[in-house]
Amino acid sequence: MKSDYKNQLVIGRNPVLELIKSNKQIEKIFVQKGLKGEFEIELRNLLKGKNIPVSYVHPNKLKSFTSQNHQGVIAISALIQYWNIEDLIDDIYHKGEIPNLLLLDSVTDVRNVGSIIRSAEVLGAHGIIMGTKNSAVINHMTIKTSAGAIFNLPVVKVKSISNTIDLLKNSGIKIIASNLNAKKNINEINFTDPVCTVLGSEDEGISRHISKISDEEFIIPQTGQTNSLNVAVSAGIILYEVFRQRNL
Amino acid sequence: MKSDYKNQLVIGRNPVLELIKSNKQIEKIFVQKGLKGEFEIELRNLLKGKNIPVSYVHPNKLKSFTSQNHQGVIAISALIQYWNIEDLIDDIYHKGEIPNLLLLDSVTDVRNVGSIIRSAEVLGAHGIIMGTKNSAVINHMTIKTSAGAIFNLPVVKVKSISNTIDLLKNSGIKIIASNLNAKKNINEINFTDPVCTVLGSEDEGISRHISKISDEEFIIPQTGQTNSLNVAVSAGIILYEVFRQRNL
Repeated sequence: MKSDYKNQLVIGRNPVLELIKSNKQIEKIFVQKGLKGEFEIELRNLLKGKNIPVSYVHPNKLKSFTSQNHQGVIAISALIQYWNIEDLIDDIYHKGEIPNLLLLDSVTDVRNVGSIIRSAEVLGAHGIIMGTKNSAVINHMTIKTSAGAIFNLPVVKVKSISNTIDLLKNSGIKIIASNLNAKKNINEINFTDPVCTVLGSEDEGISRHISKISDEEFIIPQTGQTNSLNVAVSAGIILYEVFRQRNL
Repeated sequence: MKSDYKNQLVIGRNPVLELIKSNKQIEKIFVQKGLKGEFEIELRNLLKGKNIPVSYVHPNKLKSFTSQNHQGVIAISALIQYWNIEDLIDDIYHKGEIPNLLLLDSVTDVRNVGSIIRSAEVLGAHGIIMGTKNSAVINHMTIKTSAGAIFNLPVVKVKSISNTIDLLKNSGIKIIASNLNAKKNINEINFTDPVCTVLGSEDEGISRHISKISDEEFIIPQTGQTNSLNVAVSAGIILYEVFRQRNL
C-alpha cells in the first residue's frame, strides 16, 4: 500500500487543508472514522461543492499508508489534470469530431486502467470517464502501464455515473454497454454515431442499472471455456471495432 | 524473485537430477557458471536431446531464488503440460479445423503472456507457441492472469523459432507478422486461411529475421501520439479480427 501512492501522499491536518485551498486536484481524502472538532468542521466546509471523494476509515487504514503522524487525515493528490465532462464534450464538438468515449464503471485495477488509457489514445478515442467511487485511483503504475498516454488523453472523474449518462444522452451521444448477457454481437452496433461505450468492473461486469439506462448493449463473441476477456483487452477490441467502422 | 516461482523451485544436485529423470516438464535449469566435475557431466548427459533450456549464471542469481544450499543448481519445474508442435498441428487438422495459432517471439512479461492465453482461449485460437529463450517462464502470475484459460489451451515451447516457422509453412500455415513498419492494415489480411500470427517483444517488436521469413505483415492502425499498443491488447485485437473474419 505504501509504495502504491509514493509521491502522492499529503499527510496531516495543515498540509491537507492547504492542499485543498490550493485548488490542486485531489484523488481522495481519507479521514479517521469518528474524528470530531474544529478541524473536522473546517475540512467539511472546505470540501463543500468540490468533487473530492472522502472516505471515513479505521486508523489501521491510515497507518497502512505511512508510519508518520497523520493526525487522522491523509490526502492522495492527483498526478494528472482531470477534465470536466462538459468541457470535454464541447471540445469534441468544437473540433467537428464525432464523440468516441469510454466510460469505466468500477474498473478497480490500476494496470487495467493504464492499459485502457494507452489503447484509447493510440486508437483515437476522445477520452475516458471514470467514477470517483469504486474506481482505480490513478497512480504511478497507471501512468507506467499507460506508456505515458495518460498525458495525451482527457480523463474525467464523475461523482454520479447515472447523471453523466443523462448528460451524455442530452448531448446526442449514444450509450452502448458491453454486457456478457447482451444478444447483439459487437459488429452489429453502429459505432459511426456519437458513442460512449460503458465497461463494467473486472468481476461483476456492467451493473443492472447501467444496463437498463443504456441505449444498446453488445457482447464480444466468445467460444472458449473461460468466462470472459480481461477488461483491458475488451476495451482494446471495442476501440479497434470503432476505429474499423469509422476509418477502414 | 523468490516469490515469482514459489512451489516451482527444485533446489540442489540430487533433486534436480531426479526431476530430470522423472520426465516431468521443466521450464529452465540454472547452473552455476564454472561448475565442473562428476555432477556437471551427469547433468549434461541427462539433458542431451531434451528440450530443456539451461542458463549458466553467477552465484548471485542462484542466491536470488533461495537462501537454501543450492549446490550450484536450481530447476524451475513446469506448472503446465506443454504440447509438442507436431502433435498440435496434427490435432487441429484431425479435427477438420483451420489452424489459428499465435507465436510469441520474446514476450517476456508473465502477465502479458497470461492475458494473451486468456484471450486466445476465449476467442477460439488453437494454441500459443513460445520460444524457450527470451520468453516469460510460466509461473503462478501467468496462471492467474490467464484466469485459468492456460489449462484449456495448448501451449508449445520451441527451441528455434525459425525452424518452427519452417515447420508451420510446410504444414500449409501462413506466417503473418504484426509489425509497426508494415504497410498493410490488419483488416487487409485474409485470416480465413490457416494462419500463425507472430507477435514480437514488448520493447523491440518483431525481429528483422522473423519479418523477413514471414509471408505477410500488417499493422494495427493507430492515430495517437503513443508509440504502440500493449502486446496483450494487440493480441486481443488480432484474435478478434481473425474471429470476425471467420465467424461474423
